[in-house]
Amino acid sequence: MNHSFHPDRRRISIFGSTGSIGKSTLDVLAHLGGINAFEVPAITGMGNVDLLAAQARTCGARFAVTANPDRYGDLKHALSGSGIEVGAGPQALVEAGSRPADLIMAGIVGIAGLAPTLAAARTGADIALANKECLVSAGDLFTAAIAAGGGKLLPVDSEHNAIFQVLETDQRHAVERIILTASGGPFRTFTRAQMEDVTPQTAAAHPNWSMGVKISIDSASMFNKALEMIEARHLFDMQPHEIEVIIHPQSVIHSMVGYSDGSILAQLGAPDMRTAIGYAITHPRRANLPVRRLDLAALARLDFMAPDETLFPALRLARVAMQRGGLQGAVLNGAKEAVLEAFIAGRIRFLAMADVVESVMDAMAGLAPAYAIEDVFAADREARRRATELMDGTR
Amino acid sequence: MNHSFHPDRRRISIFGSTGSIGKSTLDVLAHLGGINAFEVPAITGMGNVDLLAAQARTCGARFAVTANPDRYGDLKHALSGSGIEVGAGPQALVEAGSRPADLIMAGIVGIAGLAPTLAAARTGADIALANKECLVSAGDLFTAAIAAGGGKLLPVDSEHNAIFQVLETDQRHAVERIILTASGGPFRTFTRAQMEDVTPQTAAAHPNWSMGVKISIDSASMFNKALEMIEARHLFDMQPHEIEVIIHPQSVIHSMVGYSDGSILAQLGAPDMRTAIGYAITHPRRANLPVRRLDLAALARLDFMAPDETLFPALRLARVAMQRGGLQGAVLNGAKEAVLEAFIAGRIRFLAMADVVESVMDAMAGLAPAYAIEDVFAADREARRRATELMDGTR
Repeated sequence: MNHSFHPDRRRISIFGSTGSIGKSTLDVLAHLGGINAFEVPAITGMGNVDLLAAQARTCGARFAVTANPDRYGDLKHALSGSGIEVGAGPQALVEAGSRPADLIMAGIVGIAGLAPTLAAARTGADIALANKECLVSAGDLFTAAIAAGGGKLLPVDSEHNAIFQVLETDQRHAVERIILTASGGPFRTFTRAQMEDVTPQTAAAHPNWSMGVKISIDSASMFNKALEMIEARHLFDMQPHEIEVIIHPQSVIHSMVGYSDGSILAQLGAPDMRTAIGYAITHPRRANLPVRRLDLAALARLDFMAPDETLFPALRLARVAMQRGGLQGAVLNGAKEAVLEAFIAGRIRFLAMADVVESVMDAMAGLAPAYAIEDVFAADREARRRATELMDGTR
Repeated sequence: MNHSFHPDRRRISIFGSTGSIGKSTLDVLAHLGGINAFEVPAITGMGNVDLLAAQARTCGARFAVTANPDRYGDLKHALSGSGIEVGAGPQALVEAGSRPADLIMAGIVGIAGLAPTLAAARTGADIALANKECLVSAGDLFTAAIAAGGGKLLPVDSEHNAIFQVLETDQRHAVERIILTASGGPFRTFTRAQMEDVTPQTAAAHPNWSMGVKISIDSASMFNKALEMIEARHLFDMQPHEIEVIIHPQSVIHSMVGYSDGSILAQLGAPDMRTAIGYAITHPRRANLPVRRLDLAALARLDFMAPDETLFPALRLARVAMQRGGLQGAVLNGAKEAVLEAFIAGRIRFLAMADVVESVMDAMAGLAPAYAIEDVFAADREARRRATELMDGTR
């Protein structure tokens, strides 16, 4: 292979390379020197094996894995003659995470990202984290795996990346609060009456970022922000009352840190994930990236409002989950996934989602903490089952 | 003296202690431990010798100096029995700057602050700089004195302090621009026709900060921002084109730094100088200060607009001064002082101020660079004289 001439290249594996995080990561790596600067021990994707194969060839990946075991043959065929090793299915994903790397871009969406990212953390690789479930559902296990491995944990979410950029870790005593900004979604000015009539179509119309339907609805209900609060607790070792959320419709300030001398430090930028991805990859250095520069005069104004927790109870539920600890994050997330699917399918109303999640959280509050990843999966499944049962019962 | 029991106290001298910076500094020092934590080798003030004497007694100063030589007797009397050494006049100010200290809070306003602050810089003390002329009029000399002394230069101006807080000095290659925010003063939305009729009374009505008349008019003409641009060039070693100004009427974002990865880092806060003063004193640590915490939801919105340099030519003149270098900063500032006084006295119109300053700058563009502080004083006097001459000629 023509890549063996660069023994000093940094090894970066990419999980979820065919999704938006993965595509942006490959773009950033190309700008930072491409195959002259990086080697890619492993790359993983879902069902789009043609794109995955093309990406693997372009970046010179050693090992390409599709999460879908049924697509093994297709990926094998698409990579024939390339010399790139091929794998498929959950075990191959974990294998991809176990391959030695300096950094893993952990971009697999959902609970499926848990096992491979945990495996990667244990190898000591730095983890650039774009998967929410690692911290929301398995925060204690995951941070323990990072600590055991000795790698760095680098948040890629624009909010957490912003905090990471302006958090003076040596001044932890002076950090009073972190302030997560939230676009507020399309319903930020709605009354309760208006929210009663929300449909999946209106909820999916996110004002700032082009996102999938599920993420858009999570944004509209602010369940996405609830998950980010729980992530922030684990990422930055914050107490629940130190984590604030403010609605900022323009999403220009990506998040903030408040200090005991009255200073608030903020990171701002255009809505382009490449800034956060680049910072996670090059930290503590900064690279030159072809991202649009922010023009505040052209933006003219930035707005802020406090979220109404009676209309966005997800934020309150996040604090409950943080206070209870243990597997309550996994329960919140599992139940949330179930009600989200039900809402998209028209089986439950918008405002009922949080009610069901809260009932499931209360019912599962006595669960013992996770000792292994299987406990997380079990809590996730049980929360989904109970949520579905509740929804069936109330229809 | 009862202070000799604390050999490890940090030595902080305060220049201009009876002004707003000095008062805030004494308040911050009291919050940070008072005489148990700090000793004050020297304290200086202007004509308010009663306040100066009271401050000197409270903070246990060793040496108290009034800038006004005629008030020596009054200060001596006010401090009788205290054991505090007393001085008066310009030479005593320089003597105050020469007394060994760990940090000098350099809060003397105007060209009078130059000699004592330069003397302090040469001793190797850290300089917390609130005097504009040190960098605007004598930037090359002053930064050389800091380098020779080996102390740190810590900006106290809220704008420069904000930049100082979010400037990653080890990533200088990635710093693309600094963005100074400007309140824009009371005329930020005026047309040229409206600005023709501006009076000293309307110009002095500053929207956010309680300031003196001169500073308020400098804010209305944006000459204050022009001076800050020149200061920023010396403080952060920026090129003229890397220094931007944006009008932000609420003055909540104190200033920003733009990086090559698309990130903008910003410092925000309530309009309270104690945050910047505290940061300059405790840097790189952060203290706990009784400053009002910012509530962005209560503020609701932040506005931004590009300044119109045809209406605010001071910004253009700052770039001219930076590009020409040498003593053009001293010339700009000296001429500006003369036109400012003439405007307050009703002898010149608002928009004519910049015209006169530009003419003086052009006429004195061939001046050799400063080799000594006397060259700065000479350029300052000559610029004032020429500006006055021009105004007399055009009346």
